[in-house]
Amino acid sequence: MTDTLPGTSLPGLSSVRHKVGAALTGFLDAKDQAAPGTELLHLTTTLRGLLSSGKRLRAVLCVYGWQAAGATGEMTAAIRAAASLELFQAFALVHDDVMDDSDVRRGQPSAHRALAAAYTDSGGPHGRAEAHGVGAAVLLGDLALVWSDELLHSASPAPSQLATLLPLVAEMRSEIMYGQLLDLQTTGRLTGDVETALRVIRYKTAKYTIERPLHIGAALAGATQPMLDACTAFGIPLGEAFQLRDDLLGVFGDPAKTGKSILDDLREGKATVLMALAVQRASPTELTTLRGLVGRSDLNEDQASQVREILDATGARQTVEEMITTRRNAALTALDEAPFAEAATARLRQIALTATERQT
Amino acid sequence: MTDTLPGTSLPGLSSVRHKVGAALTGFLDAKDQAAPGTELLHLTTTLRGLLSSGKRLRAVLCVYGWQAAGATGEMTAAIRAAASLELFQAFALVHDDVMDDSDVRRGQPSAHRALAAAYTDSGGPHGRAEAHGVGAAVLLGDLALVWSDELLHSASPAPSQLATLLPLVAEMRSEIMYGQLLDLQTTGRLTGDVETALRVIRYKTAKYTIERPLHIGAALAGATQPMLDACTAFGIPLGEAFQLRDDLLGVFGDPAKTGKSILDDLREGKATVLMALAVQRASPTELTTLRGLVGRSDLNEDQASQVREILDATGARQTVEEMITTRRNAALTALDEAPFAEAATARLRQIALTATERQT
Repeated sequence: MTDTLPGTSLPGLSSVRHKVGAALTGFLDAKDQAAPGTELLHLTTTLRGLLSSGKRLRAVLCVYGWQAAGATGEMTAAIRAAASLELFQAFALVHDDVMDDSDVRRGQPSAHRALAAAYTDSGGPHGRAEAHGVGAAVLLGDLALVWSDELLHSASPAPSQLATLLPLVAEMRSEIMYGQLLDLQTTGRLTGDVETALRVIRYKTAKYTIERPLHIGAALAGATQPMLDACTAFGIPLGEAFQLRDDLLGVFGDPAKTGKSILDDLREGKATVLMALAVQRASPTELTTLRGLVGRSDLNEDQASQVREILDATGARQTVEEMITTRRNAALTALDEAPFAEAATARLRQIALTATERQT
Repeated sequence: MTDTLPGTSLPGLSSVRHKVGAALTGFLDAKDQAAPGTELLHLTTTLRGLLSSGKRLRAVLCVYGWQAAGATGEMTAAIRAAASLELFQAFALVHDDVMDDSDVRRGQPSAHRALAAAYTDSGGPHGRAEAHGVGAAVLLGDLALVWSDELLHSASPAPSQLATLLPLVAEMRSEIMYGQLLDLQTTGRLTGDVETALRVIRYKTAKYTIERPLHIGAALAGATQPMLDACTAFGIPLGEAFQLRDDLLGVFGDPAKTGKSILDDLREGKATVLMALAVQRASPTELTTLRGLVGRSDLNEDQASQVREILDATGARQTVEEMITTRRNAALTALDEAPFAEAATARLRQIALTATERQT
């Protein structure tokens, strides 16, 4: 993928990612310098590590939303808003890993594990390391959350612009938390409740990851309601397709390509649409197998294969593939009809195709 | 204490507390009604329980700061800002209890314990209850934090007013989190570092609990810089005195009067000024005793008595009493010199005296 579209001045993916990275680094540098002591450095170092990885999808969508709504030229405000979404996402990941007790995030130790190690390295007693790591990670997430606010506020020079942005951001935050809550309540309970699994996807991914970043960028560009509605019409089906693809890759993917374990979701008992469909359609024998295996923290590869066979045999996998296709097509149709700036439309189409493509 | 001051229309403590309670209830009712499902009810019920207790000190100070800066009449905005501080405090308490793994808060089960129980009551597997409680409490704290924002934003009808408020709120949040971090890093490490113990107090209590609520209320009333400076001159020494008193009561208090255990701080190894002074002055034998006992989670009353004797014998307790007196006097002198509205000054004096008085 080239980094500018021919014939336009629209910066491409890697350029946006780079600018967002620079905004984040500048913000954290200022925080380190303003800190009343050196104690904060453990936390900001951990945060920098987390922010330096990742695809910055939300940031990219925020900037493309801004461009889709017709903005051009000076993009400092859009980059800051985009960077604030990445800080917010860092908050969500750090707390999510605490909630799930995950050891690894983006190929590195998760924040609570890294902070536990830093504590013993600095002479803290071993017996307190784990509890300290969790405490420090809860705090790090809190800091990332309030800092995402500060960075966002710095993105809007006009108070009236802030008044437009804040309700959108409030919605986004309530949505992700509602999605997390549903996730927390359903994980580990094997059911055939496809409807609830779809609601989790809608809140955690479709709205939070796709629709709201587009909205926030578009609002910064002074978007009208039809423009925001077009972001929704494109963003919701794309977000659902994206998460459905992610769920398939989490069970059937190639870890070498995706960087994602294909045991974790099964071990955790993640209540995906895929699993709910299989439970709905499973024979009594298949159901017994699923109940015995899904959610076992010591699930091995052989057992995972048995589960995969049932996901195939019940047609659950195939149905999810069809759901992805339907949603991707709906997103692309919505994009064709959207009143977006042309160059942004081309970029969004690329993202839609890449994020949902079949990789297995 | 009567509930209005004679000759003024200034509402007293219980009236402010009542109005703040009504604002919080109204806000949470609206959240429950707007929720996309019933899953949120567990969380808001837990939050309501937490908010219904407590002295609402920050809310009261916010309203008095507003009045000190000369505001009168319609107080909806001040009450909403005050209520938002209570929601923020609920966030801080819920996460603090997760970090400290505390079982009890304000005489009730802490949020993560209550949510673990609710999970098993609703049919969740027992083996996951504790982890679920922690996860749900992290999420509940996050929600309280972002909702405190929404409530604050609803307090300022004019965008320009919001632009004045937001940096103060950002400061307040960074301060409490920095204080929490220091607390987390020092707890369980017995040192004679009085300076760091005082920094924890300054950030966690003096600034967060006293100075910033006054500032936020005063800023809502359009306070000038000298007015904000007067809030600082009064608030910082008062806040330090208040926390030093609280630390003494946490070791020497009468639980029947204070509702506070006198073993918890010692068991946790809380790095108070009191303890740092004792460590500085302890004989080698006394130091060995302190190191052997402070921070033991199974510390019994006899062992606590031994620690108390050392706190007395080293003069640490007496020094802390003197530090309280010095700071209380400084606060009262600052109050005499402050350009505050008279009725608010009288209220603030009452609070200063009550919060720091000797109770043992």
